[in-house]
Amino acid sequence: MNFSIVKRTLGWLLLFEGMFFLLPLLTAVIYWEEEFFSFLIAIVICGGLGGLCLIKKPENTSIYAKEGFVIVAMSWIVMSLFGALPFFFSGAIPSYTDALFETVSGFTTTGATILQGHEVEGMAKSLLLWRSFTHWVGGMGVLVLIMAFLPLSGARNMHIMKAESPGPTVGKLVPKVRQTALILYAIYFGLTVVQFILLVCGGMPVFDSLNTAFATAGTGGFAIKSDGMAGYNSYLQIVVTVFMLLFSLNFNSYYLLGRGKFKEAFNAEIRVFLLVVFSAIALITLNLCLAEYGYSVGEAIKHAAFSVASVISTTGFATEDFNLWPSFSKTILVLLMFIGACAGSTGGGMKVSRHIILAKGGMHEVGRLIHPKQVKKITVDKRVVEHEVVRSVNAYLVAYILIFVVSLLLISIEGHDLTTSFTSVVTTLNNVGPGLEKVGPTGNFAFFTDWSKFVFIFDMLAGRLEIFPMLVLFAPSTWRR
Amino acid sequence: MNFSIVKRTLGWLLLFEGMFFLLPLLTAVIYWEEEFFSFLIAIVICGGLGGLCLIKKPENTSIYAKEGFVIVAMSWIVMSLFGALPFFFSGAIPSYTDALFETVSGFTTTGATILQGHEVEGMAKSLLLWRSFTHWVGGMGVLVLIMAFLPLSGARNMHIMKAESPGPTVGKLVPKVRQTALILYAIYFGLTVVQFILLVCGGMPVFDSLNTAFATAGTGGFAIKSDGMAGYNSYLQIVVTVFMLLFSLNFNSYYLLGRGKFKEAFNAEIRVFLLVVFSAIALITLNLCLAEYGYSVGEAIKHAAFSVASVISTTGFATEDFNLWPSFSKTILVLLMFIGACAGSTGGGMKVSRHIILAKGGMHEVGRLIHPKQVKKITVDKRVVEHEVVRSVNAYLVAYILIFVVSLLLISIEGHDLTTSFTSVVTTLNNVGPGLEKVGPTGNFAFFTDWSKFVFIFDMLAGRLEIFPMLVLFAPSTWRR
Repeated sequence: MNFSIVKRTLGWLLLFEGMFFLLPLLTAVIYWEEEFFSFLIAIVICGGLGGLCLIKKPENTSIYAKEGFVIVAMSWIVMSLFGALPFFFSGAIPSYTDALFETVSGFTTTGATILQGHEVEGMAKSLLLWRSFTHWVGGMGVLVLIMAFLPLSGARNMHIMKAESPGPTVGKLVPKVRQTALILYAIYFGLTVVQFILLVCGGMPVFDSLNTAFATAGTGGFAIKSDGMAGYNSYLQIVVTVFMLLFSLNFNSYYLLGRGKFKEAFNAEIRVFLLVVFSAIALITLNLCLAEYGYSVGEAIKHAAFSVASVISTTGFATEDFNLWPSFSKTILVLLMFIGACAGSTGGGMKVSRHIILAKGGMHEVGRLIHPKQVKKITVDKRVVEHEVVRSVNAYLVAYILIFVVSLLLISIEGHDLTTSFTSVVTTLNNVGPGLEKVGPTGNFAFFTDWSKFVFIFDMLAGRLEIFPMLVLFAPSTWRR
Repeated sequence: MNFSIVKRTLGWLLLFEGMFFLLPLLTAVIYWEEEFFSFLIAIVICGGLGGLCLIKKPENTSIYAKEGFVIVAMSWIVMSLFGALPFFFSGAIPSYTDALFETVSGFTTTGATILQGHEVEGMAKSLLLWRSFTHWVGGMGVLVLIMAFLPLSGARNMHIMKAESPGPTVGKLVPKVRQTALILYAIYFGLTVVQFILLVCGGMPVFDSLNTAFATAGTGGFAIKSDGMAGYNSYLQIVVTVFMLLFSLNFNSYYLLGRGKFKEAFNAEIRVFLLVVFSAIALITLNLCLAEYGYSVGEAIKHAAFSVASVISTTGFATEDFNLWPSFSKTILVLLMFIGACAGSTGGGMKVSRHIILAKGGMHEVGRLIHPKQVKKITVDKRVVEHEVVRSVNAYLVAYILIFVVSLLLISIEGHDLTTSFTSVVTTLNNVGPGLEKVGPTGNFAFFTDWSKFVFIFDMLAGRLEIFPMLVLFAPSTWRR
């Protein structure tokens, strides 16, 4: 284990985090808020510690797979520990555990909150903006951002990118990792700006628009109103619906679209994703209309589309309390949480491409049972899926189930109803935000014990980093020199 | 596809089923019940149709993997269709769908019932015995029984045995398949007799003892009293607890024990199984005592042990309504349903050995992520697990999840609470019997629509036959000549 390179990366990370704090600091100046000092102290701490980590240059800059995982896991933990400071210093969230929960929920783009509705609305604007901005920072990955600007370790950066980027495989758009990172962030930034403008044009206040754009772009889901997105007009809700879906698509596709490669951009994952989205919207609309839920057909479609987009993109915004919907609709929504967004997007969950590989692998094996001598390869988009990828997806599934089961057991000790325990784990491990019953769209996570909150913190990180980096931390061989 | 050999096997199956009916027929004679005629007609039908199927000898007796799956799937479907006749003819279960549900639940050793408690108690003794006897027939597998007596197709029988026997691999005890089948049935028969004697000695009426022994041996769970096992004394409950666990162990181990190979008998699967059983009992006992559930420590241990044994063995008997227990205990019980018994036992579920292979496979991949160049094999009991087995277990998991999700969606259309929908699918797909809420130990499956009952019928068959045989029926290539 090359500890010096880990330390160096953490140093850069802290400096970047210090810079991130400048945005809410500026907000505090604009709105003349005393939270200014909380951010100032946080900046000093991050800057000081970051600088200390960077004084000594590492002799050995080699990064292998193991270092990649450890750097990513440690970075996200450290980033969250320091990102929670302003909430804690300002007294807005008096418990540090709660502040950490909120920050992890932010960076991992989960959007589960420990704040009551009135507490959110009463919060200083600078803190609210920081809370939304954590979504934006976490969405595309902070190390990808750092790599876009700094030559961390040359060609070996791929290991970091692999560990931080969502999905079973990472496609480089251009030969250089740094260049790829830059392009991805440019797309990300561009789409966010477009959404911001569309929201402002639709009559949403500028501050609300900025927060909503950050939270949508990262597919996070922190709302700054106690009623979530319910209070905004239909146009704004539709804009958010569309952008939640846009941010769930593989960003590589936008790059390919830009280069005129329509056919490549519209790949199998996106086709399956859209098929699932439209089927789910149709089924839920049908269910809501047949169950005479009091919606007009138009309203039913709008709310179904918003909820489906919110859940499958793992954003977690809400216009309606879907916890009150009929069982069939709720079951669909919970299942969508497990599906998740496309690989290479800012969305969470298991990712559509993993499901495609799992399904094709399963069918492949059934085929082999019938025709034992048949030799066929698993292909997606007419390309052979490497055997390594299939195996790692299978391992991911097993690890996912293991973490899920252990978390569920730990949470159920508190004795809440099974639906609450089950969906609170589903929603944190998949970085969605709301679940059902007590953690439904109108609920929050405040009532859990600190013990359970730490389980959720682990789950949110494991979900965002796709499990392996967090598991590697527990392997004894990781910590040998 | 060799249809002639399928037809021939089904012919033998119907003749055997006709013979099985002799036991309840005899019971009807003893108790002078008019159900005698229902069984007589069923025997005539099975005998006649079976004979017709056997008139023409097949030219081609070759059985390959595909034929093995189809024979097993078709046999279980046909056996259930005809096994339901006495319930229907006698008018005891007026709906044929309900009668089929009950029979499939019997043969697959699920034990979920569509009968109310008073309906069970009011049923003719011959029908009750047939109901319990289906568990015994299904437990070890009817085709294994036929193979023990008939030379179906020589050495190729292995394909049938593989498809019908529970677990990821099938170990032949002796070189000949027929011999192996005979030994397994001898162990099965012997253990059943021992349990019967122990129950009778404990004061249970002979008729009750016979039914209970059949239902325990097959890990089925049909009770003949409306209060399940609650009305019997502690000695009897403990005997049932112990035998539920004994019938969940790999029968190969009994053979090895008999030959003095203690170390081989006490293999990894059994060690893990016992570890899980004792941990679960300890945790639930602790939970019941701490939650001040009104039990003495002794009672808590007894009920915890009974429920854990009942659920992990997938029997489904109940002494207490565990639906009223605290969440933590309920969560453990639901998780145990997914674990299931040992391979090569009469128990259902995913089987402990599959979980071991999945877990080892997962850890193996995590290890490879850290040390990409490491070449290690997955071993269980110091033997290398063939790559084929690992892949087929992974495929099993994917197919299992797929069937689970589709079933859950279909059941949730009825609009029951999520826990009812979820656990009703869990309990049928894993052949357990009771679930939680409306399908809890004091509930039953009568309230579901016929549509949902067919979903459960499919799930019970898919669970017992471990999915692939049922899936092969849906592959178009299966039906090509």
